[in-house]
Amino acid sequence: MEITRTLARFVVSHNATDIPQNVRHEAARSFLNWLGCAIGGSRHETVERALAALAPFSGPPEATVLGRGNRLDIMHAALMNGITSHTFDFDDTHLKTVIHPSGPVASAILALAERRPVSGAAFLHAFILGVEVECRIGNSVYPEHYDVGWHITGTAGVFGAAAAVGRLLGLTEQQMVWALGIAATQSSGLREMFGTMCKPFHPGNAARNGLLAALLAEKNFTSSNQGIEAKRGFAHVLSTSFKPEEITRGIGETWEIALNTYKPFACGIVIHPVIDACIQLRNEHGLKAEDIDAIEAKVHPLVVELTGKKTPQVGLEGKFSVYHSAAVAVIYGAAGEAEYSDAAVKDPRVVALRDRTKAVVDNAMHEDQTRVAIRLKNGKTVEKFVEHAIGSLHRPMSDADLEAKFRGLAKGILGQADCDRLIGLCWKIGELEDAAEIAGASVPG
Amino acid sequence: MEITRTLARFVVSHNATDIPQNVRHEAARSFLNWLGCAIGGSRHETVERALAALAPFSGPPEATVLGRGNRLDIMHAALMNGITSHTFDFDDTHLKTVIHPSGPVASAILALAERRPVSGAAFLHAFILGVEVECRIGNSVYPEHYDVGWHITGTAGVFGAAAAVGRLLGLTEQQMVWALGIAATQSSGLREMFGTMCKPFHPGNAARNGLLAALLAEKNFTSSNQGIEAKRGFAHVLSTSFKPEEITRGIGETWEIALNTYKPFACGIVIHPVIDACIQLRNEHGLKAEDIDAIEAKVHPLVVELTGKKTPQVGLEGKFSVYHSAAVAVIYGAAGEAEYSDAAVKDPRVVALRDRTKAVVDNAMHEDQTRVAIRLKNGKTVEKFVEHAIGSLHRPMSDADLEAKFRGLAKGILGQADCDRLIGLCWKIGELEDAAEIAGASVPG
Repeated sequence: MEITRTLARFVVSHNATDIPQNVRHEAARSFLNWLGCAIGGSRHETVERALAALAPFSGPPEATVLGRGNRLDIMHAALMNGITSHTFDFDDTHLKTVIHPSGPVASAILALAERRPVSGAAFLHAFILGVEVECRIGNSVYPEHYDVGWHITGTAGVFGAAAAVGRLLGLTEQQMVWALGIAATQSSGLREMFGTMCKPFHPGNAARNGLLAALLAEKNFTSSNQGIEAKRGFAHVLSTSFKPEEITRGIGETWEIALNTYKPFACGIVIHPVIDACIQLRNEHGLKAEDIDAIEAKVHPLVVELTGKKTPQVGLEGKFSVYHSAAVAVIYGAAGEAEYSDAAVKDPRVVALRDRTKAVVDNAMHEDQTRVAIRLKNGKTVEKFVEHAIGSLHRPMSDADLEAKFRGLAKGILGQADCDRLIGLCWKIGELEDAAEIAGASVPG
Repeated sequence: MEITRTLARFVVSHNATDIPQNVRHEAARSFLNWLGCAIGGSRHETVERALAALAPFSGPPEATVLGRGNRLDIMHAALMNGITSHTFDFDDTHLKTVIHPSGPVASAILALAERRPVSGAAFLHAFILGVEVECRIGNSVYPEHYDVGWHITGTAGVFGAAAAVGRLLGLTEQQMVWALGIAATQSSGLREMFGTMCKPFHPGNAARNGLLAALLAEKNFTSSNQGIEAKRGFAHVLSTSFKPEEITRGIGETWEIALNTYKPFACGIVIHPVIDACIQLRNEHGLKAEDIDAIEAKVHPLVVELTGKKTPQVGLEGKFSVYHSAAVAVIYGAAGEAEYSDAAVKDPRVVALRDRTKAVVDNAMHEDQTRVAIRLKNGKTVEKFVEHAIGSLHRPMSDADLEAKFRGLAKGILGQADCDRLIGLCWKIGELEDAAEIAGASVPG
């Protein structure tokens, strides 16, 4: 079975009309959510530093840094928008693999669309195909690949970007095989980088490198024909297990983007059940920090593994602290960007409550569950069991929720009218004459 | 033990005067050999295709594609020169790790030197430090890392490029730690790509990404403080074993570049003993193809594993065929680029002799040994045992050999006077006022 070629053939030959309406709508939701994150993250120090370093090397200023208006060559723009969209760790999640699927793909093709005009319909189709490729490749190696230490959004994302760009470039099947091979040999990104600016760098880098892969393949730059499945190809080198049937089975019949989810909270998905439980307890019981003796959350092992920082010093580290997250959820009733600012992490009330918060690993919990008990100073204990956190597949955010999230992210950057227009463009992206209109509309008046 | 920080501290604080003269001379030899390979490879189809794909996205044309004169932004120039210098698989080899050390490092810093003027002395120093970093990191994970399937020139090379560029940028220790971390999280390149255009892409990509890493770190783009040694850092994720003492032990006292070697033949180092033996037999016995019944070479297992292509169809595949290599060695008495052309691979005399050539794995052979027996149609058999191939550490090419190799590579691209000048510049690189002079001098007339 030729896995890489099967995937390549699928991407170059699939008909847009074969995509069900609900899948197209989920793609628009994914895109809206991604765009909000990119705009919201566009003023962050991470982006300022990357721009300061790289803008002097930009080529033709053909593409937009979303939400800012700086114009860079398409590869640098793809890099920057991939970075901004993941800076708040607030973008979408394909829960089966913990891939953040939109960043690598959307960043690459939106930049390309500013250079080579493309209809919204073709854009949305390529976006769906790119997400399909990265998530199927992710499915084929998850969880072992992630357990080894790879940041799967980077390692799988580069394939998604290459596939989507390659589709828009009209690559032949052989060129698409090469594009996936050139992507394979650039696949990278270490989980060690979590909590540093390199984490959002990963989807940006995947977008940039996937774009590079497709552009090289377009000029017949050769690569392996089995970049994914060969003995020394992606899957065997970067993972301890490989399930090739996850890539090929039912391809074109089921759609991974239909399984996409969006975060109501600006941190890693694994803490969401705890935050959800804390906010519910706060609201139901009118809790105040000063009334609380201790918080204890029973959690899946990954929660402590990924977000076990006990004493975060800066906002970014707070996102990797289940203790900080529980504290802000109780104190502020929210866990948006403001609750992960440097100031929030140093707020004495938050620090005091954080230090009275415990996370206890309970192997009976699945990843979306938690049981939070808050012991009050009056001796009472209130408890909440969360079966599925808000934002999960079982309790998805509504379209209106997503719009509200977008507005929250764009606040202070775009005015109300600009927001309205951009949200409108996203919902009708499949009908736009020129997909690049969205990039232009993201720039403040 | 903080491995990444120890390495960073070494790179930012080392004094050039502490480098022995023989090490500086070996660095000049390495640089000359690399430059010849880059110029020689500069007209190859691989480069034409990469340039066609990427030149439209170049930023300020500040750096030179060696041997051609196209001017690109420094990151694209670093990429291109890394590609050209490895296109013929004729560049230097650090035998302990099979890293081709010059490509990633020299490509990155020469491009940088065209933007930020630097003395030849500082340039040579940074070059030596970069090679030291990549080879020590290579030593710490070799051979297991290579056995997993990683092309170590790409995966270790990105560290060397980041370190050398970072040194020239004057990074602080903390910034250098970050640069190495940003390099770690881009470390990539699969052995599956051998025999395709992606193989020379790897050192180019390492140069480009190492440059990117150092430029980001210069603007305080943060990364892990333990990018190399952390549980989910480079060494543990990309290798099944890690010997950290190989990075830190004797650092600044011994120099890996002193162990560098140069190829007399335009193919993978593992076939060199066989070619050497065949050329010696040919010359000693005046052999002609039509007199030969069969060739049998007893070889180290890697020879068949890496170069076992029985029926190569194009020149590039010929480099991965011990059979083709033995045949051209006997027929032409040489194994330069001409003997690995598409025409040579299809030459009926070569094909006929190739098909009568056998490679027999002999576990008693070390990698630099072979015993070749050529059975003649007259019933006689002639034999040659090679203990160390020409070009190895034990039988190094002389300075004059390297000059002759350079001239051979530059033939048809540079005239005699240009060659003389460039060779002269390389030998006195440590005294040049402006290292970038070499880039300009590589451009024909």
